Formats: sequence, structure tokens, C-alpha cells
Amino acid sequence: MLQSSTILLGSLLSIMAVSTVVRGDEGMWLFNALPLKHLEQNHQFSPTTEWADHLRLSSVRFNSGGSGSFVSSDGLVLTNHHVASDTLHKLSTPERNIIDAGFLAKQPSEELPAPDLELNQLVSIENVTERVNAAVAADLNSDEASKARRAIISTIEKESLDSTGLRSDVVTLYGGAQYHLYRYKKYTDVRLVWAPETKAAFFGGDADNFEYPRYCLDASLMRVYEDGKPAKIDNHLGWSDQPVANGDLVFVSGNPGRTQRIFTTAAFKFLRDERLPYVLDFLRRKEIMLQQYGLEGIEQKRQARDELFGIQNARKAYTGMLAGLQSPQTIQTKQAAEDQLLSAAAKDEGLKPLTSAWQQIADIQIEKAKLLGQSTGFQSRLYDIAETLVLMSAEDQKPNSERLREYGEAGRESLLQDLLSEAPIYPDLERAKLADELARFVEQRGGDDPLVQHVLNGQSPQERASELIAGTKLADVAARQTLVDGDRTHVLASDDALISLALLMEPEYRAHRTRREELEEQERQAYTKVSEVTAAIDGTDTYPDATFTLRLAFGTVKGYQENGQTVQPWTVLNGAFEHAAEHEGQEDFDLPESWLAAKEKIDGHTQLNFICTADIIGGNSGSPVVNREGDLVGLIFDGNIQSLTSDYLYSDEQARAVSVSAAAIREVIRNVYQAPELADSLGK
Amino acid sequence: MLQSSTILLGSLLSIMAVSTVVRGDEGMWLFNALPLKHLEQNHQFSPTTEWADHLRLSSVRFNSGGSGSFVSSDGLVLTNHHVASDTLHKLSTPERNIIDAGFLAKQPSEELPAPDLELNQLVSIENVTERVNAAVAADLNSDEASKARRAIISTIEKESLDSTGLRSDVVTLYGGAQYHLYRYKKYTDVRLVWAPETKAAFFGGDADNFEYPRYCLDASLMRVYEDGKPAKIDNHLGWSDQPVANGDLVFVSGNPGRTQRIFTTAAFKFLRDERLPYVLDFLRRKEIMLQQYGLEGIEQKRQARDELFGIQNARKAYTGMLAGLQSPQTIQTKQAAEDQLLSAAAKDEGLKPLTSAWQQIADIQIEKAKLLGQSTGFQSRLYDIAETLVLMSAEDQKPNSERLREYGEAGRESLLQDLLSEAPIYPDLERAKLADELARFVEQRGGDDPLVQHVLNGQSPQERASELIAGTKLADVAARQTLVDGDRTHVLASDDALISLALLMEPEYRAHRTRREELEEQERQAYTKVSEVTAAIDGTDTYPDATFTLRLAFGTVKGYQENGQTVQPWTVLNGAFEHAAEHEGQEDFDLPESWLAAKEKIDGHTQLNFICTADIIGGNSGSPVVNREGDLVGLIFDGNIQSLTSDYLYSDEQARAVSVSAAAIREVIRNVYQAPELADSLGK
Repeated sequence: MLQSSTILLGSLLSIMAVSTVVRGDEGMWLFNALPLKHLEQNHQFSPTTEWADHLRLSSVRFNSGGSGSFVSSDGLVLTNHHVASDTLHKLSTPERNIIDAGFLAKQPSEELPAPDLELNQLVSIENVTERVNAAVAADLNSDEASKARRAIISTIEKESLDSTGLRSDVVTLYGGAQYHLYRYKKYTDVRLVWAPETKAAFFGGDADNFEYPRYCLDASLMRVYEDGKPAKIDNHLGWSDQPVANGDLVFVSGNPGRTQRIFTTAAFKFLRDERLPYVLDFLRRKEIMLQQYGLEGIEQKRQARDELFGIQNARKAYTGMLAGLQSPQTIQTKQAAEDQLLSAAAKDEGLKPLTSAWQQIADIQIEKAKLLGQSTGFQSRLYDIAETLVLMSAEDQKPNSERLREYGEAGRESLLQDLLSEAPIYPDLERAKLADELARFVEQRGGDDPLVQHVLNGQSPQERASELIAGTKLADVAARQTLVDGDRTHVLASDDALISLALLMEPEYRAHRTRREELEEQERQAYTKVSEVTAAIDGTDTYPDATFTLRLAFGTVKGYQENGQTVQPWTVLNGAFEHAAEHEGQEDFDLPESWLAAKEKIDGHTQLNFICTADIIGGNSGSPVVNREGDLVGLIFDGNIQSLTSDYLYSDEQARAVSVSAAAIREVIRNVYQAPELADSLGK
Repeated sequence: MLQSSTILLGSLLSIMAVSTVVRGDEGMWLFNALPLKHLEQNHQFSPTTEWADHLRLSSVRFNSGGSGSFVSSDGLVLTNHHVASDTLHKLSTPERNIIDAGFLAKQPSEELPAPDLELNQLVSIENVTERVNAAVAADLNSDEASKARRAIISTIEKESLDSTGLRSDVVTLYGGAQYHLYRYKKYTDVRLVWAPETKAAFFGGDADNFEYPRYCLDASLMRVYEDGKPAKIDNHLGWSDQPVANGDLVFVSGNPGRTQRIFTTAAFKFLRDERLPYVLDFLRRKEIMLQQYGLEGIEQKRQARDELFGIQNARKAYTGMLAGLQSPQTIQTKQAAEDQLLSAAAKDEGLKPLTSAWQQIADIQIEKAKLLGQSTGFQSRLYDIAETLVLMSAEDQKPNSERLREYGEAGRESLLQDLLSEAPIYPDLERAKLADELARFVEQRGGDDPLVQHVLNGQSPQERASELIAGTKLADVAARQTLVDGDRTHVLASDDALISLALLMEPEYRAHRTRREELEEQERQAYTKVSEVTAAIDGTDTYPDATFTLRLAFGTVKGYQENGQTVQPWTVLNGAFEHAAEHEGQEDFDLPESWLAAKEKIDGHTQLNFICTADIIGGNSGSPVVNREGDLVGLIFDGNIQSLTSDYLYSDEQARAVSVSAAAIREVIRNVYQAPELADSLGK
């Protein structure tokens, strides 16, 4: 599943995006710099400005880590079940498990408001590179440069928010070579309309995840509201019921989370030998912990299910990514290209001084490795809330331009929406997670570490976690609101156990973050040089690495060869029933009752899933796939195993993006979920 | 489950066993040094020599990592289902899953021969300390001392084997203060008679493992044969059908695998901060890997099931052990006792020089930490075979007294039985395991390491694993036999891919092992001093740490307090049905069909599981529990969560050993499994 992992994306997103040589249908293109020449030459397609604007304005980003699109004039938004699952989980109760059982609002009044979703529609892009660079004097050291850059970015964002009322984010592109101001219309009243059962959406489970052929109805419909009514949408996608054909040109408009295609060989080796093994140990630990919690009972399993799914998904993705990096060929190929580039640059007096950037990046990797395994917080919802309240109370005392980025005024509304969410919090799950995090903290620093001893307060991790959960009121939104309304003195005077713990950890958190941002700034400056050298040698007609902002990818519907067999480019609804029969008795291979009951009613020849060569990555989940006419033909939900290396290397040999067919979605909404009116309204 | 983990025990077993202060019913006593005074004073029980000899001779050790007992004159052996499961797994086929479905031989001809079981009955113990010490001159350095000690031990073992024909092992006790020669009668024709379904044996699954109250029929019956006929057994246990009562004195005769009660504070901290976190990362990795393999299909799940169970069991045990060590109180208590001991020793001129041992042990821990994560092999059955063949071919060129311990002549029969086992090997599972091990090797050393590059041979870990499995014939026992029959030149000339790999790794393996044994020797010498100081200050009436050799423990049947509630000391058969109903819909909480069908036929008031305060540990699984009369009342199969810290600390406050009641075993064999003759023969 191609969801951006909110757990892991954080520190990676800050690594910037830079340019590289483009091959085949490679590319996650900026909407203000589309590859018109390439499309014209290779696909005889010349998108008009209107075509591109319409697609951009029909696309939305989910703050929970995915993409989506408007598919009706009255606010229907299509995304994946697994992108919606964060909301489905928050809307579920012990009595009503929406993730597993699915949901259908028979009328608008039954649509369920999501507790903390924010959807972003990209309404304009402005290049602010000159203004940013002008504010950063050339003679500043990296710490001063970082501060100056952060200050001007905060100022630009705040000015834009004040003048337009739109969410305004300055995005760093091409490793810092460009800065663009993105303005978004926000939708925060988002309601659930329809979701199928997990058995249909995630048919085949963890076993089939990232596999192909595939038979998943990984889709869900929400609706955005304004002023308590379904929003009127000017730009929405038409809906195509036509099957895709071999060789069809298709486009994907979505928000790829992160790629690292320009990374140097040294950076690849850091990923291979340090970061990914570390992340995988972490993920496996959390996977086992959540599995164990789920074994305690059906309700515990329900509570842990959504997070467990996210962890398993990330674990499988990272495993594939590491496997690719461990293949000696990957590094050899990268090294050869780098040697060639550096050798060409060495012959150019203007470029030669810039090549020191490669060594700088290698040195920075060594420093980054030292930061691995230095936790300065405890991943659990309640601790996260406490940490946010503590940091916010300190940041609010500073001028806007000097604050930690996420506490700036431009982002305040989004921050508070999350902080004050009414989404349920499960104390037993929080206790289990916190106990594991405290144990991990002891492991990282050793039990004799003074901070560890202070944190444990003489108790075992389990006992201390119980004490902390019993001693906090932060599960209550009103208690959070009180601290939001107060100031630093209220936070310092709080007797809440988790607030006290977050205050104890605050100096450590800040020291670690300062060091991390220092390294990021040094890396940013080095990659700006790498970008410059690469552009000079390889040309400038390229795209920046992914930044979880809107991009256009394109590709063709196309099968591939695997173990001497041709893998067909699509599956059909009948195939799902056959797949279930072939895997009878295996976990996660049972279709839901609703499908079994409707088997005779549906057109089994309808395409269910299809693949194409478009260049996508985590974060693209839920992206619309459109045809030349701009009509929706599919919904991205996954990549195959061979695509897991596309973080650092695009290939169209075997790597494929996997979509749910638009035709299948309409067919099952009509004939399995028996919602003909909803089916009819798609694309209208 | 209290099975000795064969995966993990290896390097821990070599750590020796030393003495400490005894409290309550603590103790895993040597049969040649029973705590007669304590039993007389505290329990008014004076076992006769005949009583003890009979119990010792009725006990057996399983080479697969557990304990058992003779329970009939015609060779019936009782052990746990989970001790038998290694054999059940090896006897299973895709068509006949004995682990899950259970097994009952209706007549002797249906009894299934285990492919590679060896049962050991301890027939004599001889103190050879003086002879060992005499062979190790005082002026030798640690390397020379180690060699000299290994040589004399090999010689003693070989002499004993030649003169008695019995398996002869010299056991290091009290941290090297004593060496005892154990002679065993071996039974290698062992056949499966009866095993219940996993649903009965492991009712409650991973969730209930190490929990109490408990409702498991974790039992199995085998039979030893001699000359193709059921062996005539002179010493077997009587069978008691009486329920145990509160306060009953009971005895456990079994083979505890390893304890580390005498460890110094520094050694505890090494476990807490280095070794256990490392082991847990490893176990979680393997758990996920085997789960993933099992997701591929029902047959794959069957293939991986037994190993997965072992990993999960170890992961849960180590998690509890680490949690105990992370509790600041544990270390504080240990440190306080150590301070007191050292302070007393400092006042004694004779003991004072010995106290440097504590600092030596602290220094050794730092060296041991450096060895963590240095794999010199690849855990998979086929690679293990290759490694054994390679090492054996080199060791056989040396005199017996200079060989690596396991290649000595005294152990040759046992080694060959394992090496030439006809137990099935699954190539797909081997490939998956080898790929993961190769990936782990890259992670440990980094992809640029020359040995890594040599091992990978230009391919990814997955590709290389496929090539290696395709290029080996070692799954075929005849191919192994050919290499066993040949010598080093045949091994060196072999074109088998795994033999080549093991040869490539051999220098690394030997270097690492030499370093490890050096440290072990230094530690052994230091702990001999620790042992001496402890004995001088605290007295000598004590027991050595566990060494997977036969010990006697004792305790009383007794409930405990938990969260303000009294936990009752036993459960009954009816409770199993209630437990299933309470957990309806949860995985692993369904009783088997056979139980549901027989519900009305069985006496539901029969005791099913009971607890006692006896001092047990992993390896005690399958140990008989007997009453004052020496009759079997129960079968050890687990400890509760609170007992997981007993590796380093015995407590009778909440920690309990958990047994299957003998009465329940007879009741279900008769009325659920409908084998009245077998039921009648128990104890006869």
C-alpha cells in the first residue's frame, strides 16, 4: 500500500528533493513545470493549461498521508480504503467496527464526520526562490543560514495566510535550488460516505500486499462539506466506465511522499548499512508488540488493527527497499554513474569546486548514523499530545519567524485540529505502547543512564507506564484545551504526569532536533551543489524528488515478464472469486458475505485492478488515474514488489503501479453494496 | 513453555554455573548432593537413597531440549507436546499434519519412529574434579589452560565411553569449582505413541503462553525400543490419580537448561543493556520472517510452524526476562548484596585478592559486547549440515583431545545421528531462511565488507540464497554420508555450493569461536573466584547454576496474590470449556472437536493444570512432578509470567511452575482419545 507512513516520513521529508537524469516514463512532475516536450514526442499528447488546471484542482491531499480526488459536483471525494482507514478506525467503536464491516450512508444525514481530517486542494503555486535566497546572506554559517531561511519562510507563509486566508506552505525543491509557495484551500468538514469491508479492500492481506496480480477493492468515498452542507465543487473528475486497454496513456495526479533518486552513493550506503536496518528493527518490534496486544482479545485487536496495518505495510515496503540496496548491482550502477558525473565535472573549472559536496555528504552520513537510536520522546498518542503542548507553550513565547516550523502561525489551525481531535484514545493500548517505548529507551541508553533513571522513577517500564497513564488527563480534550488556552506558566505548573515527563525530555528533544536540523542544513547546501553539477552535466529538463506535494506522473497500461511468464496488465471481478477459491483456508483470503451473495448480480468481466508504468511512491495512495480526456479510469493503491526500489531508482521493466479500476468501483457500489444512486452520482 | 531454546542455548550454556545464597524452596539440586537437611527441617521429609535413585533412573533428557520420564515397564515415556513437537513436525507431511491433528497409535505396530531423537538416562555420577585440575598446571595462561582442560575432559570422556559403552559427559559445575562425569544410557529408537491436537496442547496459544490460570493438555507419550522391541524398563514412575492439595510437597526431576543466579552486577548489566536487546531484535526478526513465509500458503505455514512456535516462545520468555532486569529494583538488590559480600571479603586477607574477579568480569562483559552481531554462519538446516561436515573433516585430522568439543569421539554417535537424520528438509523454507541470514550478514558487516561481497558473489541475498539452495545436494542423506565417509580432501574438492560457502566462512568461524572460548575461559576462572568468595561468606550448602543436566527441585502446591485477588493453585477440565467460551472468536481459543464431542463423557472436576513453588527453568519442560511416595502427580510445562525472571532470581512470592495434572492426562486419554488400554498402562 502506497501510504505515506506518518511514523517514518517526518525525518525523511526534511531531506530535500533534487534532480537527476530521466528515463522512459519516469518522473513526478511539478504542475508548474510539466514535461510537455516529452509527452508530445513520446506520447503525441499536448495537455492544455485548462486540462492541467482542472486535474490539479480536482486533486486533494489527505493530512493522514495520502491522496484523493473530487468525483462529483456535490463534494464526493474518492480515495483508498487504506487512506480512509485512519478515519474509519477513529469512527469505530467496540460495537461498530467500521474498518472490518464497511459502511454505507443511505442518505446525507447518515454520513459520519471524520474527527480530524484535513483535505488540501492546491489552488496556486508561486516561485519565491529569489526572496528566500535574498534573505540568506552568503557569509552566514550553516546555523545562521538555517535560522535566516526559516525566518523568511515563516514570514512568507504568514503574509500569504493573512492576505489570502489560504493554507500557505513554502516547499523546498531541487535540494534547495528552488522554493515555491503552495496555497491550499482546506476542507476540514469531511464525512464518510462509503467504505467496503476489509475483506474486499485488503483481500489477500499482508500476503498479497505489494503483490500482483491483485484483486482488491481498496476504495472509499468521503464528502467534503462547507457551512454544514455538501460543498459545491467546481472542478471534479469525470468517471470513465470503459476498460483500459494495453498501451493506454494514463496520468496520475497525487502526492508522492518522498524519493531519494539524487542521493549520492555514500547516502545510499548509509540507507543500506545504517538507517534501513535500524528502521526495520524498529518496525518489527512494533509489529510484534501490537500483535501481542491484539492477542489479548477481540476488542484489543480492533484497537490495534489500524496501526498494526500501517506498521506491517511499512515493514514490507522497507524490506523490499533494503533488499534492492543490498543487491551489489544497485550500488555498482549508482557508483558508475556518479564516477562518470564527477569525472565530467572535474574537467570543468566552474563545476570542479562544487564536487567537494560529495565528500561533505559522505561525512554527514557518519554524523547521521550517530543520531540513530537516540529517542527523545515516546511514541504514543498521549505522549505526543503532551510533547506538543509543552513545545507549543515555549514556542509561543518566540516571534513567529523564530519558532520550530510546525508551531508557526501559518500552520496553527492544522496543529490545533490534530491536537484537539475527539478521536478515541484507548488507555490500555497507550499503556502497552508507552511501556514498550520506555523499555526501548532503557535499551538505547542503558539502564545506568541518569535520564533513564529519572524517567523510570525507580519503576520498571511497565509499572512506570501504568503510573503515567493513570496520572494523565490528556485523553480528555477539555484538559488539552485548558493548556492550549493557558501559557507556559500553566504548562510548567501542571501536575499531569505526561506533561511532567515531556518537560523532563524537552531539553533532550531540543538538543537532538537542533543537531538534526544542523545536519539537514549542511546536507541541503551540499545537495544544492550536487543538483547544480548534475543539471550542468545532464541537463535541466527534470523533476525534483518527491516532497508530499502535488505531482503529475504518466505511463502506459502494460504487463511485464516474470519467471518467463507474461503477467497480464489487469484482473477482473471474476478473478477475485477464483483467487479466493485457490487460497481456501488461508487467512485473509475470504471474500466478504456481501460479495458472495452478489456474485450472480455483478458483471464478472469488469476490470478490477490494472497496472501501469507511471512513476509513483508512498503518498500516491488514493491518487486518481485519468485518461487523455482527464476522466477517471482508476485509483492508485499499490505498487508491485519490483517497484519497492523506486524510492531511489525508477524502472519500467517490471515495476508497476497498481490501481483499482473505476469501472469496478461503480459496478460493486451498484450491485454489491446496492447503492444505485451513489453509483449514478459518480463523475456527475 | 519451558523448553530449552536450542537456538539460543548454545553460547549461554558454556557460561558456567556457580553457587549463591538459597531462599525458601529455591534450588536445582544435584542428585549426588541433595538438600537433605533442608527437606528434613522445612518439610519433614527424608528421602532414602532408593527413593532418589529410582527417581533419577525414571527421568530422561531429550536431546531436542527438554525432559521426560518413564511411566511404564514397557518403555512409555511421558513428556510435553511442545517437547515432542520437534519430532511431531519431522513426522508430519503435507497430507498428515500430526502437530495440529494429534496422533494415536492403536497398536505398537502403528507407533512412529522419531527420525533423530536421543533420550538420556543418567545412570551414574563421578566427581573428577581432582583429575581435571591436576591436568591444568597453575602457571598456564588462559589459552593454554583452556586447551589443557579441554584435553583432559576429552580424554576422561573417551576412556569412560570405551570402558562402559555409555555416553559420558564431563559437566562443569559451580563455575569450574567442580567437574563431574555423567554417564548416560542412550535410547535412540524412540517412537511416538500419542499426542493430542495443538488446540488442546497449546490451548490459548501465544496469548496464554506463560500465563496462569491455564488449561493446557501439553502432554505426549513416546515409547523407547531396544532391539526392535519395547524396552523393558526397571525404573519407572507410579501414576497417581489423586488430585494435589494445597500445601502438598512435590518434587521435580528434570534438566533445567541454564540459570545465571551468581552473575555479578556487571554481568546483569551486560544482559540488560547488550545481550538481551540483541537477542530480542534477532528473535523478532525471525518471528516476522517465519510468519511471512507461513502467509504464502497452508503448506508453508505447516512447514514453518514448529520453528515459529519456538521463536515466539523464546521471544516471550526473553521479553519477560529483560523486563525484570530493566526494573531498577533488580539491579539495586543485586548491587546491594554484592556490595555487602565484597565488603565482608575485603576484611578477610585470604579472600581479598579474589575480589579482583568482579572487575575482571566487568571487563570481560565489554569484550563480549563486541562479539554480539558477528555472525559466522547462516542459520538454516542445510547450512548447518554443511558447516558441520566442513568442521568435522578438519577436526578429524586432529587427536581427539585437541578437537572442538562436539567433534570429540565420545559424542560422535550423537553427532552423526543428527547429521544423518532423515527428517524432511523443505527447500523453499531453507531458501527463505538463508536469504534472511544473508541479508542479516550484510547488515552486520555493511555491504562494502570484502567477505560480504565474496559471500554474495555479486547477487542480492535472495538471488544468492536461491543459487545456493539450487546448488546443494545436502538435502539428500546419501550425499552427506559420502562426505562423512570421505575425509578433508573430499570436502575440499566438493562442488556443493553450501560446502563451498562453509569453507569460505570457516576461518571466520574459527577465529570467532577462539575469541569466544578465550573469554569464556577467563570468565570461568573469574567465576571460580566469585564462587569461592561466596561460599566462604555465605556458606556452601547450595546448588550450582543450571547446566541442562539432571537436577531435583522441590516445592509446595500453592496459590498467590495478584492485583488483590487470590489465584487458585489449580484448574479443572470444565474450566477449559469455560475459558473457550469466554474467548469465543479469538484465535487459538477453540478446543478441538474431540474435546467438544467428549464433553459429557469426561469428569469435568478432574484437575487439569496446577502450580507449585518448585525452582524450574527452560529445559524443565516435560519434567515429572512426583509426590512424597515418588508417584507421578504432574508434568511440568510452563512457568507463569512472574517466573520469567528466575533465570537470575528465584522467588516464591508470585513465581510458579505450571504442570499438567497426571489425573487429567489419564482421564482424557481414556475418555477423549478413547484409548482405555493406554490409559490403564500408565504407571504399570
